[in-house]
Amino acid sequence: MNTARETVETVEQLRIDPTARTEAHRRLLSVRGHVNGIIRMLETEDVYCVDVLKQTKAVIGALSKVGDSILRCHLKHHVVTAHERGDEDRIVAELMDVLKYR
Amino acid sequence: MNTARETVETVEQLRIDPTARTEAHRRLLSVRGHVNGIIRMLETEDVYCVDVLKQTKAVIGALSKVGDSILRCHLKHHVVTAHERGDEDRIVAELMDVLKYR
Amino acid sequence: MNTARETVETVEQLRIDPTARTEAHRRLLSVRGHVNGIIRMLETEDVYCVDVLKQTKAVIGALSKVGDSILRCHLKHHVVTAHERGDEDRIVAELMDVLKYR
Amino acid sequence: MNTARETVETVEQLRIDPTARTEAHRRLLSVRGHVNGIIRMLETEDVYCVDVLKQTKAVIGALSKVGDSILRCHLKHHVVTAHERGDEDRIVAELMDVLKYR
Repeated sequence: MNTARETVETVEQLRIDPTARTEAHRRLLSVRGHVNGIIRMLETEDVYCVDVLKQTKAVIGALSKVGDSILRCHLKHHVVTAHERGDEDRIVAELMDVLKYR
Repeated sequence: MNTARETVETVEQLRIDPTARTEAHRRLLSVRGHVNGIIRMLETEDVYCVDVLKQTKAVIGALSKVGDSILRCHLKHHVVTAHERGDEDRIVAELMDVLKYR
Repeated sequence: MNTARETVETVEQLRIDPTARTEAHRRLLSVRGHVNGIIRMLETEDVYCVDVLKQTKAVIGALSKVGDSILRCHLKHHVVTAHERGDEDRIVAELMDVLKYR
Repeated sequence: MNTARETVETVEQLRIDPTARTEAHRRLLSVRGHVNGIIRMLETEDVYCVDVLKQTKAVIGALSKVGDSILRCHLKHHVVTAHERGDEDRIVAELMDVLKYR
């Protein structure tokens, strides 16, 4: 059936790019290490609030950069071609859901 | 010349959508009114810091919503068709420049 | 009456610092000029979405810096002395309301 | 020596509140679980970019809430008393470093 085939192809098209996936995976292992560091800090009684705030902010920054690189990749591989595939309404709606202010 | 003609057409394609433009214009007049309100607050000697902070935050929220609606419109009218036009590299680069974390 | 007098003194203490007020006023006049610039952009039919997004982002940045300088001033003049005045609960609650993530 | 003793007392005063520490620890264990979930997603070849973006955004939200609760606690226990301790310059400077726009 054409419909089934197209569905499979669509799913394949919209996979994350392998290079971006590997890079995001690597960065998230580093984020996990950073989170583990904060967990250990919080197991010390005399930890200082601002030191925890700084580390939390740093992890948010690292996660935001992971998000940026996946976003760039999604724009490049899936969003700029959405009109050709015909799924632009879904693509725009789900992207705005992630990007909008609140 | 084809090239000149294409340039004109490209510029026309990438105009902001008239409805989005009108809406953004209306919202920015409201933002200006809000900014004028803060300016007047600051002309009063006994204004309280937190009241200014609240108003500043509200204007940032209003501007962010203007940004969201223009972004949605840009995605819908220009980004999803970029591969067909052949300017996807520029479209992705300039969009990431605006959207990226820092 | 002591109570009335204390109220007046409290209000005076919690005024924004005059230097910070003047600086914020000056910066907001500049923000208003910037907003006027975007309003004029939006009165041109062929304005490009991304140019509006860039300007909107720049104004948000400028407003955030106004917010930062008022916040610094509020911390320095009102928050660090809240326990001595005895209004720390209110000070913390209203500050968190402005600062919290969402 | 008095000086040495005061230093010890100061450090003790500026410890994170035990309740806030326990809560932040618990939340960060949950954040780590969430990060592990994204890492596993990224080990699947056909993961979709937007699903990763959504999860990344959710973790940033969770971390921001940890940050908020530590900030609230820091304001309440350390910042409002800074003038009495005499370390308000340091307290304001390090807090602005964490809170400022960029």
